[in-house]
Order: sequence, then C-alpha cells, then structure tokens
Amino acid sequence: MSHDLNPELSWLDALKWDADGLIPVIAQDAASGRVLMLAWMNREALTETLKCGRVVYWSRSRQRLWEKGEESGHFQEIHSIRADCDGDALLLTVTQQGGVACHTGRESCFFYELTGERWQFADPVIKDPKAIYAK
Amino acid sequence: MSHDLNPELSWLDALKWDADGLIPVIAQDAASGRVLMLAWMNREALTETLKCGRVVYWSRSRQRLWEKGEESGHFQEIHSIRADCDGDALLLTVTQQGGVACHTGRESCFFYELTGERWQFADPVIKDPKAIYAK
Repeated sequence: MSHDLNPELSWLDALKWDADGLIPVIAQDAASGRVLMLAWMNREALTETLKCGRVVYWSRSRQRLWEKGEESGHFQEIHSIRADCDGDALLLTVTQQGGVACHTGRESCFFYELTGERWQFADPVIKDPKAIYAK
Repeated sequence: MSHDLNPELSWLDALKWDADGLIPVIAQDAASGRVLMLAWMNREALTETLKCGRVVYWSRSRQRLWEKGEESGHFQEIHSIRADCDGDALLLTVTQQGGVACHTGRESCFFYELTGERWQFADPVIKDPKAIYAK
C-alpha cells in the first residue's frame, strides 16, 4: 500500500510527484459531472493554476506549460482542487469555456467507447476543430 | 500534440502504454458521477477486467495484479470503458460495491480539498477501515 498523503506537510510537498516531477490531473465539469480529460501538472503548473484561477497543465509532448484554452479559447475555470488518499493524483472541478474540452471539438476527450473489441465514437462533435483553431 | 488514438488498430494496441507498460485509469461511479479513484492498468489487468466484469488494476506498490475489492469486498462492477482522444488514459464507469472505494472507508479517494494552502478532509468516513479489513 502506498503511503498516505501527509496533510501536515506544505501543500505542494504533500503531493507525490513522479520521477519526471509530474502528477496526473483529472478535470471534471463542475455542473454536469462529466469527466473531461486527464492531463499532467508539475509544481509550476499547479502553482500557476492556483494563482490565475484557470487551469495550466504541463504538456509532456511540447515540454512546456500549457494554459488550457490558450489556442482554442476553451479555458477551464477552477472550482475546486482535490487530492487523493495517497497524494499521487489530483481532481479538479472546472467550468469548461465553450463546453468543449477536446481538440476534436467534443465536450470530453473520453469519447471512444469500447464496444465488442473496438473503440467506437460515442459522442458528437459540437464544434468544428477548423473553426476552433482558425484564429 | 500527441498522436490520436487509431481505432483501426486492435483495441489493446490502440492504447498508449507508458514506459512501464501502464495506462492511468479513472473510475467513476455510474450512478452518482462521483470520481472514485485513479489507478493503473497493464494489458493483462485490462484484459482481466473485460473478462471478469470487475475491475482489475495493476498495483504499482505491490507490483502485481490487484482485483479491486479482493480484500475489502468492495468490488467495482464495470458499466463502460472509454479511452481518450490520444489513447493514453481510460475512464471506467462502475458500480462501487459497498459505496466505498477508498481504503480509508470513504466513498471516493479524492477526499482532500485544497483550502487556502492546506489539504483539508472534505468527506466523511462511511465505514470504519478496521471493519473493512478485519476479515
């Protein structure tokens, strides 16, 4: 069993950052309860998120801080930040600007559902990605 | 930007397993929408989950397959399995036996809420852990 989060430590030190200094972060829509995405933060991203009230992730593919919505305008405003029992995952409740979290123009990034042994599209595209990223 | 999931591949190969052969998995209560926990699976855990209809994770601390509830009786019955746009995270909707996912006896493992700069207990203990693990 992993060691539990120690709430006596400073809030950043109480979290378990992985070998790359990252922690997985779930974003959930505060109104609908829909799970929107899973992404990653380092200490700086979490500190920035708290400071600006909008979610800032660490992009592993681009290796830089990434304010969600910086290109699309689909910012995520923070409602609450929770940690789990062993301090190695975060759950954010957010208001998703535009109602679209996914770069494919869907509400949630979790739009593939396993049906039989295939991944099937299970959600509609709400906004054409070409319109999102045309700016 | 990461590459998107290719639904033409076999369902297991379409997922992006990390350097340790793992993928992060979110479990969400199918009825309440509450996010219960984040854990990890390898290919075998996911295959077993699908086969037995109950969630089997890979325990990173114990380095073995771990059927959720094997000690506590708090099994998770699968409703749906979703993957995200780039195939590097899973979202399961489940029925949580006993209404308790956390080893601390709480509904969800995400019971610490950031308040000011402290992690505060935000959820009640529903079942005494001593009673859960006494068997």
